[in-house]
Amino acid sequence: MNTSQQAFDPQRELLLTRLIDAPREKLFRAWTEPALLRQWFTPRPWTVAHAEMDVRPGGSNLIVMRGPEGQEFPNRGIYLEVVPNQRLVFTDAYTAAWEPSEKPFMTAIISFEAAGGQTRYTARVRHWTVADREAHEAMGFHAGWGLATDQLAELVATL
Amino acid sequence: MNTSQQAFDPQRELLLTRLIDAPREKLFRAWTEPALLRQWFTPRPWTVAHAEMDVRPGGSNLIVMRGPEGQEFPNRGIYLEVVPNQRLVFTDAYTAAWEPSEKPFMTAIISFEAAGGQTRYTARVRHWTVADREAHEAMGFHAGWGLATDQLAELVATL
Repeated sequence: MNTSQQAFDPQRELLLTRLIDAPREKLFRAWTEPALLRQWFTPRPWTVAHAEMDVRPGGSNLIVMRGPEGQEFPNRGIYLEVVPNQRLVFTDAYTAAWEPSEKPFMTAIISFEAAGGQTRYTARVRHWTVADREAHEAMGFHAGWGLATDQLAELVATL
Repeated sequence: MNTSQQAFDPQRELLLTRLIDAPREKLFRAWTEPALLRQWFTPRPWTVAHAEMDVRPGGSNLIVMRGPEGQEFPNRGIYLEVVPNQRLVFTDAYTAAWEPSEKPFMTAIISFEAAGGQTRYTARVRHWTVADREAHEAMGFHAGWGLATDQLAELVATL
């Protein structure tokens, strides 16, 4: 499952990659411990109102994002693959193992590769349709994930 | 992941269950060994022209069905969960770990429960939409899977 080497599909995929000055263990913690994830996952002034994650293949996650006016957006999904400190794959195609969600929208492959004392951090977000990739991009994927990644890098520097 | 206890959803799910007079180990083999699967998977006169399966979570499978006029229908998917002799979960939502397919249509949960010397064999086939469940039913799900299951029961009696 050498996902990080697979070719990028510009039609259905969005990608963010960054070299972060922290060991990958800390980045993995920030992705898998709710108390940490809440601190970086949503670009401020958005917050994470609630986060729970059962980090194992088939385990469910629920992340409720809260907007500046208090509106809440629950995101449910499951983990498909968990390789501690190396890779995390999750999708919203299921809400539990194996209950189809209302709409399979995306699959995210988060990889953490050691690069000296730093980490090559890559998020590949794949969609089933070109229209969904376009919608995700129009929703502000690059700005949103970019700001969140800034916050992630800040947080892991303090761990 | 107690999938077999989850409530049946008549809107998006199709179900086949049968008591088969064979130990579950043999049924699991018939589902996971290509040479065996080819003998029962398609209701005759359809045949399986080709079968390959990498039976592990994230492993791909490819089953090419051939109709009586020689037309071939490739089915690609991946395994999501593999519990030897107990449960097999696969979907066509991915063609490899983790490449979205052209169309996520179904997720099949095949369970094998020991029942005396026999096996309670259950196939739950879940869809993302009501329209897809209806289409699958209209394609002849109950007749097709029923005939295939007859062939499966015949085959395992000879193992």
